[in-house]
Amino acid sequence: MGAQAINLRSKFEQITQLWSPRVVAQLNDYQFKLVRLQGEFIWHDHPDTDEAFLVLHGRLRIDLEGESVELGAGDLYVVPKGRRHKPSALEETQVLLIEPRGVLNTGCEGGPRTAQNDLWV
Amino acid sequence: MGAQAINLRSKFEQITQLWSPRVVAQLNDYQFKLVRLQGEFIWHDHPDTDEAFLVLHGRLRIDLEGESVELGAGDLYVVPKGRRHKPSALEETQVLLIEPRGVLNTGCEGGPRTAQNDLWV
Repeated sequence: MGAQAINLRSKFEQITQLWSPRVVAQLNDYQFKLVRLQGEFIWHDHPDTDEAFLVLHGRLRIDLEGESVELGAGDLYVVPKGRRHKPSALEETQVLLIEPRGVLNTGCEGGPRTAQNDLWV
Repeated sequence: MGAQAINLRSKFEQITQLWSPRVVAQLNDYQFKLVRLQGEFIWHDHPDTDEAFLVLHGRLRIDLEGESVELGAGDLYVVPKGRRHKPSALEETQVLLIEPRGVLNTGCEGGPRTAQNDLWV
């Protein structure tokens, strides 16, 4: 039946574009997405869902209004539903996102930083 | 407001018991659970949900009826809803499980290997 492990490192080798999440697996209605980040993103929120960030490589800062959280490799943070946040990374950083299928990277902000959704790698 | 990254490695240092998943974060109705595995588990399935295994350290084998999948560190596999599976690990292995809150480790099999649910670390 072809059950196969998904190697996250080799999936990342197929991703060159920054800030463009690629789906690697689905769990019920949730998706696992890999994304390469470097530089600053925009402030946004996801009004209907929490969003999980697991850093696999590099260093991620998530600004939240009034505070911020810093994540290195092996660190997990769940941004609560509706909470405005702005991810940024001084170095190239590899992140595993877990969130419901259909969530846009810019939430309800839209604009030029909005990546195409539901792209698999 | 106290936003804080969850370091998976230091959470594992607080877990000594094998085959006893500990919750570290919640994403909507889903939970992230850390579990130390060594030896063989029992055949079981989860009739209502997929179940994701992300290996952080060690080596995990998941027997599925008719095939099996082997996962090393950085490998992800999603066991489909209702599919019978039996995890086993020759060496001590650290796994991040992602699944809906309330899922029991033995699915609908029950028995002495059933761990207490919803324990946080």
